[in-house]
Amino acid sequence: GMLYGKILRSPYAHARIRRIDASRALAVPGVKAVVTGADMPPVKPGTIAPQGELEIDMYYLSKLILAQGKVLFHGHPVAAVAATSPEIAAYALGLIDVEYEPLEPVLDVEKAMEPTAPLLHDDLFTRSLGGVSEKPSNIALHLQMERGNVEEGFAQADVVLERTYRTQMVHQGYLEPEAETAWVQPDGRIIVWCNSQGMFAHRTQLSILFNIPPSRIKVIPTEVGGAFGGKIYVRVSPICLLLSQKTGRPVQIVLTREEVLRATGPGSPLVAHIKVGARRDGQITAIQAKFIYDSGAFPGGPVAGGVLSALAPYKTLHMRVDGYDVVTNKPRVAAYRAPGATASCFAMEALMDEVAEALGMDPIDFRLRNAVEEGDPMPNGLTWGRIGLKAMLERARRSPAWTEPLTGPYRGRGMALGFWRGGTNTSSCHITVNADGSVNVTVGSVDLSSTRTGIAQMVAECLGIPFEQVRIVVGDTDTVAHTDNSGGSRITYSMSAAVYQASQDLLGKMKVRAAGMLGVPPEQVEYRDGRFFVSDIPDKFKTFPEVCYASTRGGGALQGFGSNGRLKMAPAFSLHIADVEVDPETGKVRILRYTTFQDVGRAINPTLIEGQMQGGAVQGIGWALTEEYVFDEKGVLRNASLLDYRMPVALDLPMIDCEIIEVPASDGPFGVRGVGEAPIVPPAGALANAIYRATGVRFYRLPMSPERVFWALREAGRNGPRGQ
Amino acid sequence: GMLYGKILRSPYAHARIRRIDASRALAVPGVKAVVTGADMPPVKPGTIAPQGELEIDMYYLSKLILAQGKVLFHGHPVAAVAATSPEIAAYALGLIDVEYEPLEPVLDVEKAMEPTAPLLHDDLFTRSLGGVSEKPSNIALHLQMERGNVEEGFAQADVVLERTYRTQMVHQGYLEPEAETAWVQPDGRIIVWCNSQGMFAHRTQLSILFNIPPSRIKVIPTEVGGAFGGKIYVRVSPICLLLSQKTGRPVQIVLTREEVLRATGPGSPLVAHIKVGARRDGQITAIQAKFIYDSGAFPGGPVAGGVLSALAPYKTLHMRVDGYDVVTNKPRVAAYRAPGATASCFAMEALMDEVAEALGMDPIDFRLRNAVEEGDPMPNGLTWGRIGLKAMLERARRSPAWTEPLTGPYRGRGMALGFWRGGTNTSSCHITVNADGSVNVTVGSVDLSSTRTGIAQMVAECLGIPFEQVRIVVGDTDTVAHTDNSGGSRITYSMSAAVYQASQDLLGKMKVRAAGMLGVPPEQVEYRDGRFFVSDIPDKFKTFPEVCYASTRGGGALQGFGSNGRLKMAPAFSLHIADVEVDPETGKVRILRYTTFQDVGRAINPTLIEGQMQGGAVQGIGWALTEEYVFDEKGVLRNASLLDYRMPVALDLPMIDCEIIEVPASDGPFGVRGVGEAPIVPPAGALANAIYRATGVRFYRLPMSPERVFWALREAGRNGPRGQ
Repeated sequence: GMLYGKILRSPYAHARIRRIDASRALAVPGVKAVVTGADMPPVKPGTIAPQGELEIDMYYLSKLILAQGKVLFHGHPVAAVAATSPEIAAYALGLIDVEYEPLEPVLDVEKAMEPTAPLLHDDLFTRSLGGVSEKPSNIALHLQMERGNVEEGFAQADVVLERTYRTQMVHQGYLEPEAETAWVQPDGRIIVWCNSQGMFAHRTQLSILFNIPPSRIKVIPTEVGGAFGGKIYVRVSPICLLLSQKTGRPVQIVLTREEVLRATGPGSPLVAHIKVGARRDGQITAIQAKFIYDSGAFPGGPVAGGVLSALAPYKTLHMRVDGYDVVTNKPRVAAYRAPGATASCFAMEALMDEVAEALGMDPIDFRLRNAVEEGDPMPNGLTWGRIGLKAMLERARRSPAWTEPLTGPYRGRGMALGFWRGGTNTSSCHITVNADGSVNVTVGSVDLSSTRTGIAQMVAECLGIPFEQVRIVVGDTDTVAHTDNSGGSRITYSMSAAVYQASQDLLGKMKVRAAGMLGVPPEQVEYRDGRFFVSDIPDKFKTFPEVCYASTRGGGALQGFGSNGRLKMAPAFSLHIADVEVDPETGKVRILRYTTFQDVGRAINPTLIEGQMQGGAVQGIGWALTEEYVFDEKGVLRNASLLDYRMPVALDLPMIDCEIIEVPASDGPFGVRGVGEAPIVPPAGALANAIYRATGVRFYRLPMSPERVFWALREAGRNGPRGQ
Repeated sequence: GMLYGKILRSPYAHARIRRIDASRALAVPGVKAVVTGADMPPVKPGTIAPQGELEIDMYYLSKLILAQGKVLFHGHPVAAVAATSPEIAAYALGLIDVEYEPLEPVLDVEKAMEPTAPLLHDDLFTRSLGGVSEKPSNIALHLQMERGNVEEGFAQADVVLERTYRTQMVHQGYLEPEAETAWVQPDGRIIVWCNSQGMFAHRTQLSILFNIPPSRIKVIPTEVGGAFGGKIYVRVSPICLLLSQKTGRPVQIVLTREEVLRATGPGSPLVAHIKVGARRDGQITAIQAKFIYDSGAFPGGPVAGGVLSALAPYKTLHMRVDGYDVVTNKPRVAAYRAPGATASCFAMEALMDEVAEALGMDPIDFRLRNAVEEGDPMPNGLTWGRIGLKAMLERARRSPAWTEPLTGPYRGRGMALGFWRGGTNTSSCHITVNADGSVNVTVGSVDLSSTRTGIAQMVAECLGIPFEQVRIVVGDTDTVAHTDNSGGSRITYSMSAAVYQASQDLLGKMKVRAAGMLGVPPEQVEYRDGRFFVSDIPDKFKTFPEVCYASTRGGGALQGFGSNGRLKMAPAFSLHIADVEVDPETGKVRILRYTTFQDVGRAINPTLIEGQMQGGAVQGIGWALTEEYVFDEKGVLRNASLLDYRMPVALDLPMIDCEIIEVPASDGPFGVRGVGEAPIVPPAGALANAIYRATGVRFYRLPMSPERVFWALREAGRNGPRGQ
C-alpha cells in the first residue's frame, strides 16, 4: 500500500508565497494527499537539536523542509504530493497553483552582510560574544577568537602578507540520492526508513519537528550510498511523514540527481581575508583572519570547525579570528567532510606558502619551525594532547615525493597541511554469541566508510577470536543503545572504546560460565587465545565456542554491552604533496604525482585507511580544480547535473600515494584517530602552491579550472615556466 | 525481485516415488526453479535438534519437508516451483510428472504396531528402556514409567475399572496460514522471515538441515497469527531456502487453508487403555495405563507430556504406564497446546469420574482425597514444588458453579482436572533508554499470546516507571541474545526472571550515572518511585527520565541485560465445570454454563489470563464436541476446509467464566506460572462426564458430535434424562 511522494520546488530564489491551491492536483485519480508548509507543526524559534558537533536550528529547519510564507532559494520545497505511482505524483505537481511575489535575491555573501541588504529572515539576529543584535540581519553568527595582541605581533614581524581567498559552493557528490520512507501506523507510532548518518539524530529531529516523543518513532537506517556530512539534518523523511499522516499509508520519496544537486545541502563557500606576520627566522608572530561562510538560505555554516582547522597547525602568540555565518538565497549548506576546513585551509596554506617564499624558506621547514606540539595551547583555548604533526612533517621532508627533483616546463610542486579535530560523542554496541562460537555485534552507528570492518577487527582482537567469527549488525533505534551520528571521523575511534568495554563485559560473563563448566571458582579462570583455562592447569579448559554453545543450551544466554561518551579529542593532521603540469594553451592542470601523509594514530585497517586518504584527496582535488555551483543573477543553479557539475573521475587522477604515520592518540584502547576527514583538507592548498610554482601565478579563488587558469596566465603574461 | 513458491503434494498416503520429471514445468515462462527431495542436503540419521521441550529428529524432518524416495501421507510435499507470480507457479505444478508406485497405507495406529504391518520407514527402530529394537518397526518409542507394584495396588482395591478411550486427529486452527520467505544473498548469508514460535530454534533447524553455521542465517520473526505449538518445526522456509539457493532471489510461500489442514502438523490422536483401582475410602491404590500416540508419518508424538499430565494430579503408590509413539500414513503431528495432555487427561478424567461414581463419592471430593501436594513424588521421579491443586479443588467445591442445582431433562454437570508442567528454558532481553524517559525492551521471544503486555507490566514494575513508558520489541537472531521457543506456557514465567535481571542491571548503571550528576558516591544513591535520590537528602534527586536524557547527551549510553535459563518448573493445574443439555432428537450438546478454575501463580494481567483460560477452554470444547480429521480408507483427508472441519464459533458457546487462583510458584521473581496450556486440558473430560450425567451414556471416543451422541443414545435406548 505504499505511496510515492514528489516535491514541488520554488522557481524563485527569493519570493513571498501568496497562495497555494492544490485542488486541481487533489482531483487527479491516484493522488492521495498534498501537503504544504502550512502542514508543518510550528517549532519555537531558537529550538536547537544537539547533533554531535553540529547544532541544528530546528525552527529554520522546519521552514527549510517546506517553505513557510517565503521561498528562500531556487528549488526550495513548496508542496508535496503522495500518489499511487511516482508518475501520477509528478503529473499532479504541475497542477498545484502557487502564486508568488518575487523578491530581490541576495546572492553575494559580502553584500548580504551590508546593513542595507534585503533580509532573508525578519527574525534572524546576529549572535556574537556581545550577545544578540538588536536588528535582524543576514549575519547569523559572529564568532571571535583572540589570543595575545595581533598589533604587537605584526609589529614584531619582518614579513607581513595579507590576502583574500574565495571558494565556491560544492556538492558532496554522494552516489545515492536521498531515498526515504515514513509510515504513520494506525496506533500513531511512526517507522522511518532513511539513509541518514545517524538513526538517533534523525529520530531526535523528527521528534522535535513534529512534537512527538522520540520513543514513538522507530528509525531503521538503510545502507547509505555515501553522505560525507550531507545526510545529517532531515530533509526528505519529514515530508514523507506528513504525507503518511494524511493518508495512513507508507510514503516513499526518492530524489532525482537534479534535486540532489539543486536542493540538498552542499558545502559552504568561503570568503577569507587573512594576514600573517613572520620574523626572518621563520617564526610566525601574528595571524589575523576573517572567515565568512555562506550558509545559504538558513544559518548553519561550518564556522567553528573551519576556523579551528586553519589555525590548528601553527604556534603563534598573537592571533585574532572573526568567523561569520551569513545567509544568502542559495541552498542551505550541510556538512561536507571536514566541514569548513577544506576552504579555510586552502586560504591559510596558500598564504603560508607565500610567507615561506617571502622568507626564502622551504615550505615544510617553515611549517616545522611553527608546528604545534603536545602541551601547546589550541586556538580554542584547550591544550593539545599527543599529536603527530611534527612526526608527519619530518617524514614528508625526507620523502622522495618532496626530495626527488621535478623538472620540465610548466611543472611545479606544492604542499599544504590539513587538519581535523575529530569527533568523540557517544557510541554504543552490544555483543551476543551464536551457538557456533561466532558473535554478533549490534552497533548504533550507521556505516558510511566500511567502519564495520574495522569494528569487527577490534572485536576479534578484544575477544581473541578469528575476524571471520565476528559479524557487525547495524541496529535500529528500538534495539540498540544511543549512538551519535556517523561523522566527524569519530566512529572507529569512539567505537574502539565501546567494543573494548563490551568485549570485557562479555568475557567476564563467559569466565563465570566457564568456571561453572570446569567446576572451579571464577577467579581461578583465565582467558587467552580462545581458551578459558584454570590458572594452574592450562590443560583444563573450555574453548570460546564451547562456552558460546553451552550458553544456548541452558543457564542463561550471554551478552556484553559497551558504550562510550567520554573520550578526549584525537586530532588528526595531514599533509599532501602535489606535482603538477599546466598546459598553457588550455589552462588544464595535470597532476603528475600526488602523495598524502597522515597521522592515523593506529592503523586498524591500513587498506581502508588508504581508501579514506585517497578518497579524501580526490574530493579535495575536485574542490581545487573543477567543482563549483554556477548560479545566474537570479540565483538559479545552472549546472545541476553530473555532466555540468564536473567531479573528478579516474581518468583525471594519478595514483594517490599514501604514507601512514602512527602517533597513538592520547585516549582510547588502541590509540586510534579518526581518518576520514583530514585528507580532504590539503588538496586545494597543495595544488594552488604547485600551480604557482609551475606558472608563477598565484590563485586566490577556487576552482582553478582550465578556463580560469588560462585567463590568469594570459593576464599575467606568463607563458613560460617558472620551474622548480 | 521476490519469487512466489508453490508446493506439489502427494496424491497418495503411501507410495514409492519412481521418477520426477520437471522439464515441462521448467519450460514455462516465469518459472525460475523446481526443487525436489533430491535437493535436500543429506542429514545423518539420529541427528536431533534440541528445541526446548521438544526434541526434533532432523533426519526425518528433512524427509517430511520434501519427500525423499517415498511419500508417506496424502499431501506430503514432493516438489516445489518458484515463479514470478503465484499463478504461474501453481500452473507449473500441474506440469511436473511424478511416477508413483502406490503402497498399502497404514492408518490404524494399533494395526500399525503389529509386527506384520507394512513399514513406513525401513530405518525406524523402537527406542525403549531396553535400548533400540533389532528390527525396524512403526513404533518409534516405548516410554515406561513405573512406581511401586501395580499388581499389589490393584489387590488392595475395592473398585477396579478398566476402559479404552480414543481421540481423533485435530488441528490447532491458527488464523494465519504459514507464510514464509527466504533469501540466500549473494554472499551466501541467508535471511528468513517466518511466522515461527522461535527465531533461534528456527535458525538451529535450518542450520542443521542445510549444514550451514547458525551465524550465517538471520531469522526475522514476523507477527504470528496463532500457532498453539503448530509452528515449532520448520516446514515451509526450507523449501523457500532451496528455491532461493537456485535462483538467488527471495522466495515466498504462503500456504492455502486447505494445505494448512491437509499437510501441516495437527495434534496427535490417542488410544488409551487405563485401569484404576481404589479403596472404598476413596484412596486410589493403583493406576495402570497404556497411551498410544499416533504421530503420523514421522516419529514425534507427545508421549512424555501426555503421560505426565494424565497422572500428575493423583497420589498413588503404585503405577505403571507405557507410552508409545507410533507412525501411520497421516500428516506428521506437531505440538498442540499442552501437547498430548488434552487427549490423555480426557481419558483419565473420564475414568476417574466412573471410579468416583462407583465409590459413591463427589467427583471433586474424590480428587481432593487423592490430590498431590508439595513434597510428593511426581510420576517422573522428581518432587512437586509449591502447587495450587488443593487450593483450586477447595475453591471449586464451594463455587456456585458446582453447588447450584442444575435441573431439567437431559441436563448434567461434569468436571475434570487439567495439568501442564510448564516450560522453563532460556529467555533473554535487553533494555535501552530513550531521551524521553521511556525504555525499549528487546526480547528474544516471539509473541503468541500478548506476552508483550505482561512483560511490559513487569518491566514497569521492576523499574518503577509507568507502563506506558515501556515498549517491548521482538528482536531478531542477529541482535538479541539466545531465547528458546515461545511454547510450553513458558514466556511470561521465564521472562519475568530475565526482565528482573535486566532491570536491576540497568538501575545499577543509572544509579552510578545519577550519583555523578548529583555529585555524590554511587553508594549514597537510592532509587524509589522514579527518583534517584541521595540517601540522607531525599530532596536531592534526579528523576528516571532525567538520567535517561543525560545518557543520550554524553558519558555513554545505558543498557541493561537479562537472561535466565535456570528456573525450576512452575506447574499449573486447572479444573473445569460444565453444565450441558443434550438434545435427544439431534444429539447436539448445548453448553449451558462453563466455569474454569486455574492456579496461575501470580496474575500479572488478569484480563489476558482470562483470555487464555477462555481460549483454551474453547479449543478443548472443539476437541470434545466437533473436531476431527476424517480420513477415507486410502488415507485421504475428506474434510480439509473450515466448512467441513468444524471448529466452535461464538454462537456455539456460552460465556466462559474464569476463577483465578494464585498460589505463587516456587521460583521466579513474581511467583508467575505459565497459563496458556492448562485450560485446554479439562474440557473433553468435563463434557464427557456432564453428558453422562445428562444422558446416562458414557463416551469413550472423541468428538462427542451430534451424530455420535444421537446414535449412542439410540443404541443405549436412553431417551430420558438421567438428571442430576
